[in-house]
Amino acid sequence: MPAGSKTDPLLAKAKPISASVITYLRRKKTLRERAFAAGERNPNMVNAGDMNGSGNLMDFLDEPFPDVGTYEDFHTIDWLREKSRDTDRHRKITSKSKESIWEFIKSLLDAWSGWVVMLLIGLLAGTLAGVIDLAVDWMTDLKEGVCLFAFWYSHEQCCWTSNETTFDDRDKCPRWQKWSELLVSQSEGASAYILNYFLYIMWALCFAFLAVSLVRVFAPYACGSGIPEIKTILSGFIIRGYLGKWTLLIKTVTLVLVVSSGLSLGKEGPLVHVACCCGNFFSSLFSKYSKNEGKRREVLSAAAAAGVSVAFGAPIGGVLFSLEEVSYYFPLKTLWRSFFAALVAAFTLRSINPFGNSRLVLFYVEYHTPWYMAELFPFILLGVFGGLWGTLFIRCNIAWCRRRKTTRLGKYPVLEVIVITAITAVIAYPNPYTRRSTSELISELFNDCGALESSQLCDYINDPNMTRPVDDIPDRPAGPGVYTAMWQLALALVFKIVITIFTFGMKIPSGLFIPSMAVGAMAGRMVGIGVEQLAYHHHDWIIFRNWCRPGADCVTPGLYAMVGAAACLGGVTRMTVSLVVIMFELTGGLEYIVPLMAAAVTSKWVADAFGKEGIYEAHIHLNGYPFLDVKDEFTHRTLATDVMRPRRGEAPLSVLTQDSMTVEDVETLIKETDYNGFPVVVSKDSERLIGFAQRRELILAIKNARQRQDGVVSNSIVYFTEDPPELPPNSPHPLKLRRILNLSPFTVTDHTPMETVVDIFRKLGLRQCLVTRSGRLLGIITKKDVLRHMAQMANQDPESIMFN
Amino acid sequence: MPAGSKTDPLLAKAKPISASVITYLRRKKTLRERAFAAGERNPNMVNAGDMNGSGNLMDFLDEPFPDVGTYEDFHTIDWLREKSRDTDRHRKITSKSKESIWEFIKSLLDAWSGWVVMLLIGLLAGTLAGVIDLAVDWMTDLKEGVCLFAFWYSHEQCCWTSNETTFDDRDKCPRWQKWSELLVSQSEGASAYILNYFLYIMWALCFAFLAVSLVRVFAPYACGSGIPEIKTILSGFIIRGYLGKWTLLIKTVTLVLVVSSGLSLGKEGPLVHVACCCGNFFSSLFSKYSKNEGKRREVLSAAAAAGVSVAFGAPIGGVLFSLEEVSYYFPLKTLWRSFFAALVAAFTLRSINPFGNSRLVLFYVEYHTPWYMAELFPFILLGVFGGLWGTLFIRCNIAWCRRRKTTRLGKYPVLEVIVITAITAVIAYPNPYTRRSTSELISELFNDCGALESSQLCDYINDPNMTRPVDDIPDRPAGPGVYTAMWQLALALVFKIVITIFTFGMKIPSGLFIPSMAVGAMAGRMVGIGVEQLAYHHHDWIIFRNWCRPGADCVTPGLYAMVGAAACLGGVTRMTVSLVVIMFELTGGLEYIVPLMAAAVTSKWVADAFGKEGIYEAHIHLNGYPFLDVKDEFTHRTLATDVMRPRRGEAPLSVLTQDSMTVEDVETLIKETDYNGFPVVVSKDSERLIGFAQRRELILAIKNARQRQDGVVSNSIVYFTEDPPELPPNSPHPLKLRRILNLSPFTVTDHTPMETVVDIFRKLGLRQCLVTRSGRLLGIITKKDVLRHMAQMANQDPESIMFN
Repeated sequence: MPAGSKTDPLLAKAKPISASVITYLRRKKTLRERAFAAGERNPNMVNAGDMNGSGNLMDFLDEPFPDVGTYEDFHTIDWLREKSRDTDRHRKITSKSKESIWEFIKSLLDAWSGWVVMLLIGLLAGTLAGVIDLAVDWMTDLKEGVCLFAFWYSHEQCCWTSNETTFDDRDKCPRWQKWSELLVSQSEGASAYILNYFLYIMWALCFAFLAVSLVRVFAPYACGSGIPEIKTILSGFIIRGYLGKWTLLIKTVTLVLVVSSGLSLGKEGPLVHVACCCGNFFSSLFSKYSKNEGKRREVLSAAAAAGVSVAFGAPIGGVLFSLEEVSYYFPLKTLWRSFFAALVAAFTLRSINPFGNSRLVLFYVEYHTPWYMAELFPFILLGVFGGLWGTLFIRCNIAWCRRRKTTRLGKYPVLEVIVITAITAVIAYPNPYTRRSTSELISELFNDCGALESSQLCDYINDPNMTRPVDDIPDRPAGPGVYTAMWQLALALVFKIVITIFTFGMKIPSGLFIPSMAVGAMAGRMVGIGVEQLAYHHHDWIIFRNWCRPGADCVTPGLYAMVGAAACLGGVTRMTVSLVVIMFELTGGLEYIVPLMAAAVTSKWVADAFGKEGIYEAHIHLNGYPFLDVKDEFTHRTLATDVMRPRRGEAPLSVLTQDSMTVEDVETLIKETDYNGFPVVVSKDSERLIGFAQRRELILAIKNARQRQDGVVSNSIVYFTEDPPELPPNSPHPLKLRRILNLSPFTVTDHTPMETVVDIFRKLGLRQCLVTRSGRLLGIITKKDVLRHMAQMANQDPESIMFN
Repeated sequence: MPAGSKTDPLLAKAKPISASVITYLRRKKTLRERAFAAGERNPNMVNAGDMNGSGNLMDFLDEPFPDVGTYEDFHTIDWLREKSRDTDRHRKITSKSKESIWEFIKSLLDAWSGWVVMLLIGLLAGTLAGVIDLAVDWMTDLKEGVCLFAFWYSHEQCCWTSNETTFDDRDKCPRWQKWSELLVSQSEGASAYILNYFLYIMWALCFAFLAVSLVRVFAPYACGSGIPEIKTILSGFIIRGYLGKWTLLIKTVTLVLVVSSGLSLGKEGPLVHVACCCGNFFSSLFSKYSKNEGKRREVLSAAAAAGVSVAFGAPIGGVLFSLEEVSYYFPLKTLWRSFFAALVAAFTLRSINPFGNSRLVLFYVEYHTPWYMAELFPFILLGVFGGLWGTLFIRCNIAWCRRRKTTRLGKYPVLEVIVITAITAVIAYPNPYTRRSTSELISELFNDCGALESSQLCDYINDPNMTRPVDDIPDRPAGPGVYTAMWQLALALVFKIVITIFTFGMKIPSGLFIPSMAVGAMAGRMVGIGVEQLAYHHHDWIIFRNWCRPGADCVTPGLYAMVGAAACLGGVTRMTVSLVVIMFELTGGLEYIVPLMAAAVTSKWVADAFGKEGIYEAHIHLNGYPFLDVKDEFTHRTLATDVMRPRRGEAPLSVLTQDSMTVEDVETLIKETDYNGFPVVVSKDSERLIGFAQRRELILAIKNARQRQDGVVSNSIVYFTEDPPELPPNSPHPLKLRRILNLSPFTVTDHTPMETVVDIFRKLGLRQCLVTRSGRLLGIITKKDVLRHMAQMANQDPESIMFN
């Protein structure tokens, strides 16, 4: 992002200006007025950068002050102004392009730069996702053992390259050595187990410590999933450095470390952050995007789509996720470009082929049997479970995060991570379903049990006479492996539920998608196996009789796992369409959309009944970001007059007058208040509004004028009109500031219902809005006021909204 | 839609009011003012229907006038007002729901009504689509012959039910008789051919004549594809009857007739219209939607998605089509509901199973070979072809439609349809690729040539030694059938291109999707076969050497047909994401997204280079509808002051004053002007704006007051203030009209750049906007003014914008 605090060195370079300039300025003014009268656009509205092109007629006052048009950190951008500036830029390029072939080529390049940025984002995001996947694979396996002679191979790769292994026993090959085998030459037995257990915990602690230290030292913004902040940034907030290069680097590295450490977190949310960092990096290479915060956010929306696209291998789902969940301002052009970026990213990832199966998607599944209407009942039950889990998770997690913020707990982030990692590792190792990486677990839970499946979950008792093809295995009675798996899964489920609440929100990169899906998949698989066994043992029950003949394959437990995963993810994030589409892309068939939709809708309704906020909105509120949600409906009967400042009994609004205040008056006003801007009125008596001046630009303009313009002293009159006011003789030279005056401030009347005001703020992306009655200025409503009013109406603490 | 012209009978029912009421009114006013002072919302802002709930304190003036809140035909709605009215309604229901259990249940029903409407739309749209498909099948075959003993069977169904047919010879069965066989007992020979030819033409003429007559007599709005009008309606325009029950019925029936008649048109666009009619019908059953034009449009957006969903069997594509192409205001809630409606519709259609293959999609295809990078070149060529075809089609079709509108041609719609049908039938019959229905043609062109394919297009010379599995047939040299097919396809292509230009826009239902796709598919298949033969005969060429070994299956001509179809459809409609997603749903694999995207992007770029408008926008402009396209960018340097009325030299703005005009003055003003509303100012001198009064409501209020309120005569003063003005004694009783005053009219300053004004009109859906300077009213900008200004800036005729 553009540096916001380097004003002085630039201003210091300004050359001293001789007094004769003033005569020139006068002459120049007449020329400009003539141009204006001839129908040209008022130059005051033109953005700062635009005047450079106007040739020799430039005067020093018209020269852009440095930093004009940028925003301060933790402030909200003005979307209308950004859009207007972009249109100006576009217009300038279009008119210039007719001048020469070189300019024409430049204009073409400018028009294409959007696509180039998308291509670059897709390539980098896909590459990073691939590298992260490979590194996570390797490091997760490193906790258990190492590949002899080629330590850089993961377990799977090690045994692939080894020739001595057979297909049946893929996981065991002589080159892959567990630590116990390597260190004490023992592969079985209690002491080997304890040694492996100990080293597993040590590696996990080591990874986690490294990660949290890196985050703390180099990039504090790299922690968390990043999605709440990205939502806020896309809605028009400035958080400098949040999408910076350091954050990109550190988040990528630490993401690998924390996922490998076995903590209960996923890489999918952080991948969105990583992709947005890529987007921010590439948009800073093109002035079209780097100089315009509005345009930059279009790129970031597309980058978020690319992030989800590589996280799940679901490009369409990624675009819809960006549209539904993350983005704020999403014009159709962005839709198309997001789609492009998401596709490029997905194909880049596929060509890196980290999953080794040349599939695009993270959890590829193929089911062979349809579902039956009666199954909708357990699917809806899973939806209810998902909704309850979502509510429980959000409440507990927010309570814990609030405690972390307000008590001494927050002062020891490293210790917290170490403790949670230790607890996770100690409890996770003995249970095979928590020891392995969570995505492997989900993959196994989603899987349909084929004939060749060696997993414990597929330990069914086979009919020895079976001669059916591999694809169509009938329901069978569960074997002992399945029963063992059931209680292990139940323990793993409880453990996951508890530990995830404490993990999400620590000072390390942590995503929620995978843990949520794991919780749902475990619950779903257990329900699925239950229904399957019920159907097998009770063919004759009336509900089974119609669809489950003996020897038929009627229940697919893997489908239940998938439905459960969708329900839980939906309960936590409250995604709907994008969730179903992501799941649809995973299975690649429309067949299972109805179960998925039933579960997703139920889960959303159940969760919404306990509270409308998804986890990301809850974290936004917790952090007090000024986020005006598009989904919230404002239905209260208040009017603009109830919300505007000043309230009854407060001091009157701080205003500037158009031609009667001195430089000193203005400076005093600026010093005494901390408002972001001041309305300019005709006079304090009439209070008729003529415009709005930004605080930042006022400060810069006065500073600039004092340094570079002769005759401007504290007593100089500041005027915002076209012509200088009539002054008594010998009064100091007045200072014209019409340039920084916004002549089209947004106004509403005091009788405007707040629902309309909220709508206007949302749709037009305003920072503030002036309130008038019969043309007289009454007050001002800022975005912060709107948010505080909304919080108050929802019986929340209005002071929780912290930024403007 | 609510009836707009039944004012008088209702007004006539009003009871005579005694003079004593006035005393009551005075007392009542004080009570209301107290309530307002206590912080309640200004009752003037409450919508008309809301006051009924306020209990006994109702006075006759506060009673809603009939028709308040409705709009006139061919006028634009005010989105902000509609939204505000819905919030009021919602608020009322929420507060009432706490009163009793019955009210609580009613509020639940109200909350669920959106989903119920979606369900009903999905069911009806799916059913209608299924019925249309079946009827078209039957009637298309009726042109060639009839099923003996069961005339209601189509050719395929007839031979299915017949037991005597074998698999190889599906199309021939004794029960299916061509007309010549039935009438003169001859199935071959010249005279039989001529008889069949003649009857084919007769049936076609008969169907077309019936269709055009039905449309002319019963539902003139049933003609065309309907998408331009639906776009306009969704953007907030009122066209009464366009989505009415008669239109639904007639469009469904005539759609079957015209498609069966063999004209070069499709049923996909009209299906969107049919689905929207269903949406309108069901929304009229629920007061939530029937009384609010804004909410109704949310339902219509979802209905459009359901329409595309059943047209192609692509629910996600349908939702994206609605989002990208049709809808204007698309909140996230609508996204989710559209998805639901689209799914229900798709599944209803599938359970009717009109295609007899239990597939959801219209053209199900499955390809067995991947594509190669080198193939991108022909794909991009197809994209260029699609773009050129799009441009050619739009230009020629618009020119022809304009000629139809402006010359005598437009006076003979029936004759035109008859002539075009005759020409189509005469030329189409001899060529097998134009004789069959267009969707069958596309289906065949998309198809990969399997081993069992009997089509002429698959007449390759087989290697007798071939022992490969059926799925993996290598490239083979083309046989004579393929060469015949090639020139027949070329002739069919030229014919389709020409005839479609003249067909689209006639006074019958006619869609564009299928003819466009057919053009692209024919061109694509020919290119595909060309590339395939080139690759077969020139393995050794450098471009083929890498990916096409002899005996390999490297080129799939069906894929080229699909890419060509996407390119041509994209060129005509300028869809992008939705197009690719629809195609993706047809193939069901991400594999072919890159070719499709390359073609769609190229086609859009090529077509955009010749003109930005798609066919639907072009028809909107041709008809002069007030459609403010979200996609158009306004980049000119004009200000609000350049666009507002009155212009320099024009008569001053017609305004009302707040308390100095008589009833007669107001009536004169209304009579002498035809503006939709009047700004209300403090006085003609100060011109400080206090509000805006709608023409329609002024007329109703004055009429109402004259009839029902004693003492209101022509000399009565009309006042808009809270308190009556001080009047000389013996002056007639004044008329208070504050109720109909909009106290929060939208204002911008005269210096506001037009790009901002356009943005505000678009995003907030305004009808008009007042222009002020320093609190003084200067003028007004209506949506029509904005559109005319945009047309002027684009060097088009501003007078082409006809409605407001």
